Order: sequence, then C-alpha cells, then structure tokens
Amino acid sequence: MTLLVKKFGGTSVGTTERIKAVADKLRQGHAAGHQQVVVVSAMSGETNRLLAMADEMMPGGTDPRELDVLLSTGEQVTMALLCLALMDAGLSARSYTGGQVQILTDSSHNKARILDIDVSAIEADLKENRIVVVAGFQGVDAERNITTLGRGGSDTSAVALAAVLKADECQIYTDVDGVYTTDPRVEPRARRLDRITFEEMLEMASLGSKVLQIRAVEFAGKYNVPLRVLSSFEEGEGTLITYDDEEKNMEQAMVSGIAFSKDEAQVTVTAVADRPGTAYAILGPISELNIEVDMIVQNAASEGAADFTFTVHRNDFNRVMEFLRTNMEQLGATEVSGDDKIVKVSIVGVGMRSHAGIASRMFKALAEAGINMRLITTSEIKISVVIDEKYMELGVRALHEEFGLEAI
Amino acid sequence: MTLLVKKFGGTSVGTTERIKAVADKLRQGHAAGHQQVVVVSAMSGETNRLLAMADEMMPGGTDPRELDVLLSTGEQVTMALLCLALMDAGLSARSYTGGQVQILTDSSHNKARILDIDVSAIEADLKENRIVVVAGFQGVDAERNITTLGRGGSDTSAVALAAVLKADECQIYTDVDGVYTTDPRVEPRARRLDRITFEEMLEMASLGSKVLQIRAVEFAGKYNVPLRVLSSFEEGEGTLITYDDEEKNMEQAMVSGIAFSKDEAQVTVTAVADRPGTAYAILGPISELNIEVDMIVQNAASEGAADFTFTVHRNDFNRVMEFLRTNMEQLGATEVSGDDKIVKVSIVGVGMRSHAGIASRMFKALAEAGINMRLITTSEIKISVVIDEKYMELGVRALHEEFGLEAI
Repeated sequence: MTLLVKKFGGTSVGTTERIKAVADKLRQGHAAGHQQVVVVSAMSGETNRLLAMADEMMPGGTDPRELDVLLSTGEQVTMALLCLALMDAGLSARSYTGGQVQILTDSSHNKARILDIDVSAIEADLKENRIVVVAGFQGVDAERNITTLGRGGSDTSAVALAAVLKADECQIYTDVDGVYTTDPRVEPRARRLDRITFEEMLEMASLGSKVLQIRAVEFAGKYNVPLRVLSSFEEGEGTLITYDDEEKNMEQAMVSGIAFSKDEAQVTVTAVADRPGTAYAILGPISELNIEVDMIVQNAASEGAADFTFTVHRNDFNRVMEFLRTNMEQLGATEVSGDDKIVKVSIVGVGMRSHAGIASRMFKALAEAGINMRLITTSEIKISVVIDEKYMELGVRALHEEFGLEAI
Repeated sequence: MTLLVKKFGGTSVGTTERIKAVADKLRQGHAAGHQQVVVVSAMSGETNRLLAMADEMMPGGTDPRELDVLLSTGEQVTMALLCLALMDAGLSARSYTGGQVQILTDSSHNKARILDIDVSAIEADLKENRIVVVAGFQGVDAERNITTLGRGGSDTSAVALAAVLKADECQIYTDVDGVYTTDPRVEPRARRLDRITFEEMLEMASLGSKVLQIRAVEFAGKYNVPLRVLSSFEEGEGTLITYDDEEKNMEQAMVSGIAFSKDEAQVTVTAVADRPGTAYAILGPISELNIEVDMIVQNAASEGAADFTFTVHRNDFNRVMEFLRTNMEQLGATEVSGDDKIVKVSIVGVGMRSHAGIASRMFKALAEAGINMRLITTSEIKISVVIDEKYMELGVRALHEEFGLEAI
C-alpha cells in the first residue's frame, strides 16, 4: 500500500471552502487506496492576525516562548477543521498537534530543530484506515514547551514525518503546479520540470525560486525522501525531487533551470592589503551586523593588493557602505564602491558535472545579447553571474533559449 | 505569602485592551506581594467564531474530539497574549495549556471531568516569582487527547487548581461585582452580599443567579476552597463564598437572597392513578425526550387518584404537552393542563435551618401583595413558589422587603 505524506500550506487552506476542497482531494486519495498523513499550516492571514495582537500586547518586542504558544494555535484550528470536513465526507480522521504526535524538538523557540518523532499513534491510526492530520510548523521540547520550527517549518514537518514513517512520497501542495525551468513571469516559454534533483532544487530555491523551503529540501535529501511539488488548485503530476538516478541520467539535460535574484547589491573594496586576514577583517564586522553575504569574489589586481567584491541583500546595502567608508583606512583600502542596481542570474544543472563547455556557452549567450557580466562564481552544479538590473529579463531569456529549456 | 488563583472570563479578556487591563490588575497583585495563578477563558466571540467554522465543515453535526482540539485554541491565544502583556509590564510570566500543566481528565470530550492536576511546574514558577497563566476549560486525557470541560469549565479549572495548590482564595473575576440579594434589575434596592455559603450559592445559582457555574461551586465546597466573585471592571471586595462558620452565624440573616427563574412552564396531569409507578410512567418518557424536570409536586386529590404537577423549561412546554395529551388514556388521566406564563420565586438562606416560621412569613408577604401561589416546594435552605408571570417583580420586591435585604 502506498503511504503518502501530503502538506497543504496557508493559501491551500486559506478559507473554509478551501479546506473542504482539500478534504475532497484527500477523499480521492483514499478512494485510490492510499494511506495518507496530512500536514497543515495555519489558514493564510491567521498568523498575521495573531502577530498583530501580540504586537499590541508588547509593542516592539515579544517573548519567543509565548509567541510559539500563540502561533501554534493557527495550525491547530486548521487541523481540526480539516478533520471535521473529512468526517463530513464519510472518512475516518484524527488530528494531532506537534505536542501530541509528539514531534520532539530542541528548545530554540521560533526556530526549533526536530530531534525525534514518535509515530506510534499515527501508525496505529493508519492501520485503522484513518487519515491522520498533523499540525505543521510546531513541536514540543522535552519540558512540554510548545516550539515552532520557523519560516517554512511546515514543509520541514512534512518531510520529517515522511522520513520517519518511511513514506513512499512527501507531496507539498502549493499555489504553483511544480518547479519551472525559470520564472514564467520572466520567460513565458518556461517549462514545468517533471523531475529535478535535490541538489538542483537547493540551488534553485536559494537563488530565488521560492517554491520550497531550503531546509525541507536539505532534510529530504539527507533522508532520501522523494519530494513532490504540486498544485492544490489544479490537477497535475507536479515536479518530483529525488536523487539523481540512472534512469534520469539517460535523459539528463545539461542545464535544468535558470534562477535569478533581484534583491542584490554589489560592494567592492579596492586595493585592500592582500594578506591573510583581510577578508575576515571586512566580513567579520558585517556578519556581526547580522548582514548575510552571498557571492564573494577576490581578484589579485596588482602586486600585494586585491579587489574584494561581494554581494548583499539590497536592504542591507546602505548599512554596509556606511560601515566600509567609515573603516576604509583601517582596512587599507583606497576605494569603496557599490551598486544596488544589479541582479544575479544562474544556470543550474547536475549535467554540468559531466559536460564541459557550459560556462563558455553561458558567457557567449550573454555577450551576444549585449550583456556585460560584473561578477562570476561557479560551483559544481551552477554558474552565477551578476549583471545590470535592466538586463535581467533579457539575460534569463537568452540563457533559457541557449540551453533549450523552452516548452516543447 | 498569599497564593491566589484568579480566573478571568470571556468578557474580561474580550479585547486586547481588556487583556492589558487584566495585566495591570495582576501587576497590582504582584506589587502587593501575592503569588498569582491566573486562569483565562477564550476572548469573548472567539468560541462562536470557531464554532461557526466547524459548522461550515460539518453542517448539522460535529466530532467531539476534533471540536475540543478546535475550541481549546481559544484559551491558548488568550494565555499567550496575557503573558506578553505581563512581560511588557516588566513582570515574569509563563503560560500553560491544559495538556502542559497537565490537567488530566477522563476522555469525555466536551464535558470532561478533572481527574488530577500536576502542579509541579506551576509551583516551581511561583518560587521563581513568576505569574503563571493557565488555559481554563481544557485538559488532556491519558492518551494526550485534548479535552474540554464543558460550559463554565474555566471556573472549574480555577477551583481545581486552587484546591490542588492549596491557594488561599480562588477569585472569579466577572462582569458583576458580586452576588446580590436578588437581581438589581428587578429590585433596585438589592444589596451585594459580603459573604454567602456554598450551599446558598448553589441554590442561588441553580435558581437563576448565573454568576458562577454550579459545578465550580460544588467543587469549591467539596475541597473547601474559599471562592470570591468580583468585578474585573471595577474595584471592590466582591462576595466571598465559604462554609458557614461561627463568625458568620453570629450575624446570620435568616434569608440571604431571593432567586427567581422566568423560563418556567407548569404542567398538571389530573386524576392519575394513585399507585406506585405512576410518577415514573409520566416522567420516564419525558426524561427520554431529554427534557429536564424541575419542581415536582403531587397532591392526593380524591380517593385513589392524584394531581401530578411539575415544571419544565418553557422551551420544552409544547413537546411535553403534546406527549401527555397523546398518552393521556394510558396514564389513566382525566385531564392534562398547563401554563407557560408562570415563574418560580425562591427565598434562600442557611438561616432557615435554625429559624422557624420563615415559610409562613413568605406566604403572608405574598398574600398581602395579592399574589396567588400555585405550587410550593421546600428544602432545608430554600422555599420555592410558582406564581403568575405578571407578578414576578412584585413578588420579588415584596419578599426582599419582608426579609430586610435592602441596601442599608
């Protein structure tokens, strides 16, 4: 018998009507003979409603423990309503909070990590032919404190349950019908991928294709849980995320998708002392300002000196520039320059490993489109370039065509 | 050090502003050096909001277990918000759901009974000078299922916690400032009682003075928890409910209050066979219709026959009359009559035990007001009469004056 863990996010359960539609989808799964464990999020809007009340109580602050107590009610409401809808459809169903399952986590409120899951109750229910509904996003620590897993936590709950239950598949229902070769709003000819590897998905996600939370993908990869992204609003097979297997290799495209990120800014420190410790002298304080650095490139420009360039989120640009200008002398820099009108465009594909010449094809395609590259970084399965913001659409489309990703 | 359990109901925590006002009240209690355990209900309106959604999911039905999962989120939201407000006021606070405390109950969803409470965590918090906030109304059974205690359950939670913690007092904050000699809307000279006994309170509550839930009063009496009713909106000492003690006896009024109930209807079955089993033949089927019978009076009217009269809730009147008329012959009755324009008025007081002649004073006062009594029943500490609806206010005021209950 096929055991499926299905996760429905906020918009999929955003209204009572939507919850009924989810119940109907599960009824079909039940009719098809599947065992189903369902992970739900709070109804969309509910979390914001709760946060607004919390903010009224403690303006400008909050308490991590009590915030978790508050927010965890969101999924609890959804799971009870979904069970009622399932029963109304004549099915047997039972709900569990994170504490009831139990999903044991560490005690890091608002960003807890799952330590263990006791699935004995769930397995007993499945044997009784019940559909089991579990609150996503939440767990409980060893002292019975309610914890939440942080942003995207429901995806992680679903994957973790699928791993422990050894489910055949973990299906993430969302408002898109799968993972695309690139954003269809930028390239209308973008094509839904039937399959993609965990590694590719990680690169796609971290580069801005926000279909799945990175953490859930990592988790799925670690425990080898086949992950499927599909639409809760339309029929379709979605995109299956698995390890690269032989079958897949046979038809392996060199490049699976084109990712991009608009919210980038670039900072260059010119002629810093080219000696050990310089990179840390620059990036250490920036990290202490809680600013995340993305790409990092260093060129040896002239004897004993180097240009040090990195990218940050556009929102952090001014703070970074201010810090660097204030400390220029100390860093031995002659100039600090920056630009917040840039974007990052990347090609991603496990095929790169076995195919040479992909980088040069990428650079040629961009050059032919008249696009100048400001930075280049590479990894085993992706190549990222920074280009002027105004060329983003043009660049994405040029690469999409170059690597033959169009819908057939 | 004084340990107080304080319960705040739905209207007392009905808005974020009201929750802040509760926090301020608790801040004052903290400043006065009290240890405080706070039991909260769902914000008023929240339970109805949740029930409406449940009804959409499963029109015309529900599932007791999932309903408890759903409803229990109401108090969980309140307790987290209150803790945040307390922390914002610079106090240390921690919240607990029924499952976290834990308040162990049986598995009767929607009407669970408390079996045991583990107060070790609460006691540890109190030692740390924390204010402890506990979700009322809810518990958990031995299989970790969420249960609720049914209507008025939060009062019961508070009393049970006070009993186990051996609190000095259990204070029920509500929208009235205490227990009155009678309803001030009927008799403006009604006076707030400083003290009343558990037994009197039980009679007052069951007779329509709906300040406290009967079950909580019973519980408090059983475990001898001093119970205080007071306003969450105004200052004041409220009414303390305790066992009749020596001090109190000294100043014992004969009658403590006048209770009344408007929603009554009276049914008389004339000349039923006066033999064993007749009362059951009438009341058995009525009980099976899920109709509660209140007063029961039987007069031997003539040889071998009797008039059998009882009262029911006015909403049940037509069903009862229909049943009796259909089955008149079988019951050996010559007539079935009824009246749904009647009310019950009662005098309540432990002083009755030691004072003779109270009944005749009651009857005289009513007669002098020109009020005819249709039914009379008595118990050790109350005397109830049924009178015409139109005389209710007049009767209550006449008795209030007769027994000297006016505000001084």
